Amino acid sequence: MKKFINKVEDVEEEMTEGLAKAYPDQLEKLDYGTIICRKNKKANDKVALVSGGGSGHEPAHAGFVGEGMLDAAVAGTVYTSPTPDAILEGIHAVKTDAGVLLVVKNYTGDVMNFELAEEMANDEGIKTVHVVSNDDVAVENSSFTVGRRGVAGTLFIHKCAGAKAEAGGTLEEVQAVAQKVIDNVRSMGAAIKPCTVPAAGKPGFELAEDEMEVGIGIHGEPGVHREKIKTANETADILLDKILADIDYTGHEVALMVNGSGATPLMELYIINNHVQDVLKSKGIKVYRTFVGNYMTSIDMAGFSLSLLRLDDELKTLLDAKADTPAWKEFGC
Amino acid sequence: MKKFINKVEDVEEEMTEGLAKAYPDQLEKLDYGTIICRKNKKANDKVALVSGGGSGHEPAHAGFVGEGMLDAAVAGTVYTSPTPDAILEGIHAVKTDAGVLLVVKNYTGDVMNFELAEEMANDEGIKTVHVVSNDDVAVENSSFTVGRRGVAGTLFIHKCAGAKAEAGGTLEEVQAVAQKVIDNVRSMGAAIKPCTVPAAGKPGFELAEDEMEVGIGIHGEPGVHREKIKTANETADILLDKILADIDYTGHEVALMVNGSGATPLMELYIINNHVQDVLKSKGIKVYRTFVGNYMTSIDMAGFSLSLLRLDDELKTLLDAKADTPAWKEFGC
Repeated sequence: MKKFINKVEDVEEEMTEGLAKAYPDQLEKLDYGTIICRKNKKANDKVALVSGGGSGHEPAHAGFVGEGMLDAAVAGTVYTSPTPDAILEGIHAVKTDAGVLLVVKNYTGDVMNFELAEEMANDEGIKTVHVVSNDDVAVENSSFTVGRRGVAGTLFIHKCAGAKAEAGGTLEEVQAVAQKVIDNVRSMGAAIKPCTVPAAGKPGFELAEDEMEVGIGIHGEPGVHREKIKTANETADILLDKILADIDYTGHEVALMVNGSGATPLMELYIINNHVQDVLKSKGIKVYRTFVGNYMTSIDMAGFSLSLLRLDDELKTLLDAKADTPAWKEFGC
Repeated sequence: MKKFINKVEDVEEEMTEGLAKAYPDQLEKLDYGTIICRKNKKANDKVALVSGGGSGHEPAHAGFVGEGMLDAAVAGTVYTSPTPDAILEGIHAVKTDAGVLLVVKNYTGDVMNFELAEEMANDEGIKTVHVVSNDDVAVENSSFTVGRRGVAGTLFIHKCAGAKAEAGGTLEEVQAVAQKVIDNVRSMGAAIKPCTVPAAGKPGFELAEDEMEVGIGIHGEPGVHREKIKTANETADILLDKILADIDYTGHEVALMVNGSGATPLMELYIINNHVQDVLKSKGIKVYRTFVGNYMTSIDMAGFSLSLLRLDDELKTLLDAKADTPAWKEFGC
C-alpha cells in the first residue's frame, strides 16, 4: 500500500485534526472523536444541520461545515458509520432551540446509528428529525443497503437545506427542503481503479487492465456490472441514460455535479462534463449550475459519478445562496 | 492506460471545452486553440494577467481565470508549452491600455515562447512585461530548466498580482507584486505514483512498490533522489527542511499550500497538513492562511508539494482580496 499516512490507526484522527488546522477560524474539532463543528455558530433560532458517515469521502462531510451548509459533521472510521454516541456528541455541540436536522445517507449502519442518536436526542428534549438520501439509481438494493444508496447527490441536500436553515426556516421547512432535494436528485457512478482502505492495506476489489465497474458504490462496493472500459463519452452515456430514465427532467432546469472519486484528474472530469453538457442540451434539459470536482470521494478510487438535481425556483435560490465552507463556496446574490 | 478520455488527440480541446461549459457566465474559450479568457472583463484601465503552460496541471491555469486573478490562460498540449502565436492570441483577447503581465513558470520552452509573444505584442504597441516563477527548491537545474523550476507557488503570484491589478495597480506595480511573491515563495514536492501522459499511454517513470521520488517536478521529471517510502510526517519534514533552509521564515507570517498532484486523496493532504502546521508552530512561524487541495497537478500523479509564502501586510491584503474563479474563491474583506 502506497499512501502518505503515518500509523494506519491514526488516519481518521490526524486527518480531522489536519482539516481543522487548515481552517482554524471556521472549524473546530471536538475532543470527542472525529467530529468537526462550525466555529462561529449562528443564533439559537437557526436550525442546526448534522451529517456524517464513514471517513474516506473527503471533502465530505466535514469540508461542508460552515455558513450556509452543515453545523457539524460526524465521521466514523473509514467506510464505517459513526456510533450513536458520537452522533449525539455532534448534536450536543450544535443544537439550538430551533431543532436539529440529521442528513443521513442510506446505508444500514448509518441509518440505524443516526436514528438511535435522534431518539436519544429527543429523549433529552432536543427536537431532532432526519432525512435519508438515496440518490444512486445504479442498484435497488446493495451489499450495505436496503433500497438505493445515498451518494454524491447528498451534497445538494447539505447546500439547499443548509441555505434554508441559514435563512431562518423552521425545522419543518428545512426538512421539507431536504426531502424535496431527495425527491429530485439522481446519481450514478463508474470506476476504473479501486480504492484502498488504509486498515485493509490492499485494494477492496480488482479490475482487469481493460475493465470498468459500472454503477459502483462510494465504498467500492459492486455496481450493476463489469464491462470493457469504454470512452469517456460512452461511459457518461450509460450513467446518464439510467439517471434520465428514472425521473422526468425534460423541460426542467437542473444542477449537474460531475464528481470525482478521489484519484480522477480534473482533466478527465472536464472531458466528461463537455459531453454531458452536450447531451443534456440536445435533450432540452437546461443546466442552471454545474459543479465539477471532488465532492464525495472514495479515498483513492479512480472513478466519477454524475448527479442531476431537478430544480424549481426555490431550489435555485437556495443553491445560489451564500455558503462559506472549505469545499463549497458561494458568493450569494 | 486506464483513463476516462475519448481520442488521445482530443484531450486538450475537450477538456478546455468542458471547463468553459461548466462556467459559462465566467469563462470563454477562444476558437483559436485551448485558450480560456475571463468573460466579463473589467475596464480598459485594469492591467491584464495572462499565464499558461502545458496542459496536465488542472485546475492550473485556466481554473484561475476570473475576477481577482487571471484574465487569460493559454494551454499547450499536455506538458508542452503553448506556441508564441497562441500566447499572442491570449494577449490580444484581454489586452488593455494599462498593459499586460505574463506570468511564466521557469521552463525553457515556456520562457522562450512567452518572451517571443511578449516581443510580438510590444511590436504591436501592446505594453507587455513578464515575470518568471522559480519556487522549486528541489533542484538548481533540471531536465527542462536552467535554474529552478516554477511549480505550485506560482498560484500565489496569480492571486496576489491579480488582486493588485483588480485594485487598479499600474503595470509596474502589478509586476512588482508578482516579483515580491517570487522572491518570497518556496516549494518542494514528492511522489509515490507516476503520471501517465495520454499521448504516451504509459507512466512517465516507474517507482518500486516501496519507493518514492523526493523533489519531483510537476511533469514527473526526476527530483533529488529516490528512497524507501517514509511516513507522511517524515516525508513532509524532508521537504520542509529544504524549504525552510532556503530563506528565513522565522518570525514571519506565511501562507501555506499543501498541493495535491492529481491522484492524492484529500485524506492524505489533511494528514500532511496536520504535521506541517505543528512543525511550523514549533519553529515560531505563524500560518496566516492555509490552502489544501489540488491547485497545480501532474495529471494523475500521486504526490504532493508544500509551498510557503513569506508574507508582509501588502501580500496579506492581496491574498485575502476577493477572487471569483472556478478553483479559487475568496470573499474579500
